[in-house]
Amino acid sequence: MSDRIFRVNMSDLSVKLEECPSQWAGLGGRGLTSSIVASEVDPCCHALGPSNKLVFAPGLLSGTVAANSGRLSCGAKSPLTGTIKESNAGGTAAQMLARLGCKALVIEGAPAGDRWYSLRVTPDGVIIDTEEELVGRGNYAVAESVRQRLGEKYGVISIGPAGEMKMAVANISVKDPDGRLRSHGRGGLGAVMGSKGVKFIAIEPTDNTISIADPERFSRASRAFAQALAKHPVTEGLASYGTDILVNIVNEAGALPARNFTLGQFEGHDSISGETMHERIKERGGKVRHGCHKGCVIQCSQVYNDKQGRYLTSGFEYESIWAMGADCCVDDLDIIAEADHLMDDIGIDTIETSVAIGVAMEAGILDFGDGREALRILREEVAKGTPFGRIIGGGAAVTGKAFGVTRVPVVKNQAIPAYDPRAVKGIGITYATSTMGADHTAGYTIATNILNCGGHVDPLSKEGQVELSRNLQIATAAVDSTGMCIFTAFAILDDETCLPALVDMINARFGTDLAAEDVTSLGARILKTEHDFNMRAGFTAADDRLPEFFALEELPPHNVKWDFTQDEIDSFWDF
Amino acid sequence: MSDRIFRVNMSDLSVKLEECPSQWAGLGGRGLTSSIVASEVDPCCHALGPSNKLVFAPGLLSGTVAANSGRLSCGAKSPLTGTIKESNAGGTAAQMLARLGCKALVIEGAPAGDRWYSLRVTPDGVIIDTEEELVGRGNYAVAESVRQRLGEKYGVISIGPAGEMKMAVANISVKDPDGRLRSHGRGGLGAVMGSKGVKFIAIEPTDNTISIADPERFSRASRAFAQALAKHPVTEGLASYGTDILVNIVNEAGALPARNFTLGQFEGHDSISGETMHERIKERGGKVRHGCHKGCVIQCSQVYNDKQGRYLTSGFEYESIWAMGADCCVDDLDIIAEADHLMDDIGIDTIETSVAIGVAMEAGILDFGDGREALRILREEVAKGTPFGRIIGGGAAVTGKAFGVTRVPVVKNQAIPAYDPRAVKGIGITYATSTMGADHTAGYTIATNILNCGGHVDPLSKEGQVELSRNLQIATAAVDSTGMCIFTAFAILDDETCLPALVDMINARFGTDLAAEDVTSLGARILKTEHDFNMRAGFTAADDRLPEFFALEELPPHNVKWDFTQDEIDSFWDF
Repeated sequence: MSDRIFRVNMSDLSVKLEECPSQWAGLGGRGLTSSIVASEVDPCCHALGPSNKLVFAPGLLSGTVAANSGRLSCGAKSPLTGTIKESNAGGTAAQMLARLGCKALVIEGAPAGDRWYSLRVTPDGVIIDTEEELVGRGNYAVAESVRQRLGEKYGVISIGPAGEMKMAVANISVKDPDGRLRSHGRGGLGAVMGSKGVKFIAIEPTDNTISIADPERFSRASRAFAQALAKHPVTEGLASYGTDILVNIVNEAGALPARNFTLGQFEGHDSISGETMHERIKERGGKVRHGCHKGCVIQCSQVYNDKQGRYLTSGFEYESIWAMGADCCVDDLDIIAEADHLMDDIGIDTIETSVAIGVAMEAGILDFGDGREALRILREEVAKGTPFGRIIGGGAAVTGKAFGVTRVPVVKNQAIPAYDPRAVKGIGITYATSTMGADHTAGYTIATNILNCGGHVDPLSKEGQVELSRNLQIATAAVDSTGMCIFTAFAILDDETCLPALVDMINARFGTDLAAEDVTSLGARILKTEHDFNMRAGFTAADDRLPEFFALEELPPHNVKWDFTQDEIDSFWDF
Repeated sequence: MSDRIFRVNMSDLSVKLEECPSQWAGLGGRGLTSSIVASEVDPCCHALGPSNKLVFAPGLLSGTVAANSGRLSCGAKSPLTGTIKESNAGGTAAQMLARLGCKALVIEGAPAGDRWYSLRVTPDGVIIDTEEELVGRGNYAVAESVRQRLGEKYGVISIGPAGEMKMAVANISVKDPDGRLRSHGRGGLGAVMGSKGVKFIAIEPTDNTISIADPERFSRASRAFAQALAKHPVTEGLASYGTDILVNIVNEAGALPARNFTLGQFEGHDSISGETMHERIKERGGKVRHGCHKGCVIQCSQVYNDKQGRYLTSGFEYESIWAMGADCCVDDLDIIAEADHLMDDIGIDTIETSVAIGVAMEAGILDFGDGREALRILREEVAKGTPFGRIIGGGAAVTGKAFGVTRVPVVKNQAIPAYDPRAVKGIGITYATSTMGADHTAGYTIATNILNCGGHVDPLSKEGQVELSRNLQIATAAVDSTGMCIFTAFAILDDETCLPALVDMINARFGTDLAAEDVTSLGARILKTEHDFNMRAGFTAADDRLPEFFALEELPPHNVKWDFTQDEIDSFWDF
């Protein structure tokens, strides 16, 4: 039986199982979510209305034993950016959906009034139930409640109170193998799930395995791929220090945005660095290494305990730590960890929310560095949907509008993450041109600008940045379709056995005969599909711009400005 | 001496007097503000940053004795819509600036930090003073304080606390002949003035008169023009009942948006109608007729007193009464008048603010009909800049985003005013295509759809609406450049002596030889200039759309939807 599309209509509470149309057969993950959204959603619709659709799709290799293939893509028209959106997350859901034969779960329509439901995905389709008990509860409570109701092994995808309130910062949580949370963080997809009236999706466990056309070839390729990952120096570093290893590296490069993007280095960088986190985790009996999904050989996640040795948070990423840390000038890792836990539980994007708080600090609503007040705001304002909580919950752009701030670091209304584009010019091209709004993962030029993976391109020069960003964005769109974690890219860039092994796995799984170029052309096609959606939604080259202040204000210590011409940026799309 | 451009730079506090470049010599009012903004402002700049410019320009005939020629245009890139913006107002300023030889006052740059200034416009240029006393004060207090400091005869242009807080709903007030307030209401221009650090502009009185090339011809034309205005039935009706005469007319047409655009008629329409207002004004010793500027022969304004016979508000317009009345279901004219007074004083657009409150009602934050709570919100939240006040102060679109509402009546982020586009389809075309965001004054098809001026086009049919809106938008852009009040359009549409008299006045004033077609082609050129600015700012045809809900939801009593195709709308620009 070939994989099918599970379709749920929340207007009339009907469900359907559909054969996958042939033009989508070779797609998974982002390639599939973006194709479905681009073909079925009116680009000018209200993102929170019945015309939008929320699409989940495991990657092409999800559910197999391929290393690091457990990422789940989620797509829709974004209520934050108004663009098409794909956000992917770890956790157990991708592998479980794939093994249920679910190529994509499409949630469409919207219930009348304020009604809440849960979905249960089974091998025979989706069962819709009304839900009352968990309305208003946080993601941790939802995961625990589903465990009690249905058992340990169920997968869970859920929203917290922020998604219910349809905040543009709302994310979607996915249960990880230890019952903790991973997130489809960016673009407000939790608000779309909230607008569909879906509080959570439970995924039934199954003994099914994924059918593999050529098991022996798959096994061989899979081993080669895992080895290439395991031996790459950057992925090794990630295993010891997590992504937070970047704090000191990016600070040293003068590209760590501090104090709402007025500085390129943060005085308190040592207090929030990966090295500090590593020591603290060890002291407190947490876990230095931790995988967000089964089969991960990198294990960049961790379990961070509080002073009493009790679980505080996990999946504690560099960008989250930067956002509440350097950007808001908070130099206390425990406070940042508590904020991370709260944001996961409320169900909000750590980057968008913290950058919005930084903008509120700029407006004088609270002081830079006041982490306690930030915690209070999360707990008492955002979680409860007070007016100020609604402003922060609208994201950095809405916060800037509400308080009349001009230094608002967003592209297409999405907050710029943890790398200043004046000091790492390649990532600025990615922010400007990404189909998703400002997004470092869309084309992570830090790899080549700072970490020297795939060669080196001087971060302070304009030379070569457009090409670098283009190549990485194309490759990333393809990788995001396989279910592979983005961190496989380091090995793909540097180890010539890695990409062939990945392509080999796809061929062995589906009995196809793709070459490496086919993967690249898939990536290019996905970007064009997404870009076309955005154009139809009314976006133009004028939206592929960084905020004006990057061109007006110099960033210390390099005292650099953003200096790309419009034509230089627009040449990104010449492919 | 020919009229000059008065230029003020708030970055370095420098002032200049410039000869008007020849290409702008034939322009005034909107034609001039839009030309200066389009040529000098980067369309992608932050509207509240130093790159934006705030431009005031009297009309071509302002300062002469021509009837109804006292309108002042104000232009900038709008912080509300992101488009180019022109908003015009009555009051004494246009005539005073024109007599000072000021063709345009351009305010550019921005002061560092939170510093406040006043400008004094004199025959020799502009004097900049620091201002402390009036910071935080309302527009009524500013007008009174300038009267005390400089004397009765000074003109005053000012912002209230909302403009200081850079709220996107902030307007700019202009003192009228009785020391009361008229407003450049729409598009958040008060926030731009606030971003320049300018609390008020005082205009020195002068005995200068405007030089007229052919005084006798001017006099003749001016008499003919005034006669045509005075005898037109609609302008007669406006004189007795004010614009509020429209409540019962539009309600009868089933096009009075009620309860946040869910109904086309308002149960309480009688309580807020022009007829009711007329009786009440007479009972309480107010003024039924009142001109917003010297030389107005229509006198649609009025002075509305409270129960004790004390002044409450003036310039109490249909759209303001509709917005707080029918849209928010408030059926008490005294409460609406008090709200109008408060909004004038705080310095906020009555339409944008009240529609935002309607959206908050939709979100359940307050009840429909709760006018007392609306007053509290204006006084305690918006005026004080509390978080909820900031949400409302961000306008209807921000309010919708903050509360996750899907029924948000805006085009290009500007609130849709008092005529439902499903039941008056011509005005829907104006809302969709106007270069200003949703704006009834940009092409007031109500004239022909409902009032049968310039013929009749069935409001419920799509037939002829695009052409009607196009013709009116072109004519309006030209009229907005003369300094003429938009209500001259009724006579222009119906009385064949009226337009020739207007053109004659322009020719007599400047010694030119324009024909009626030249005026039309001026209007077309202005629209194209504005549209081009918007395109460069990143707007596309996809922005020329009404919100999705108008196509999804039927409006009673006619049970009509918005049913124009995209191509039909886009054909507007075929000229």
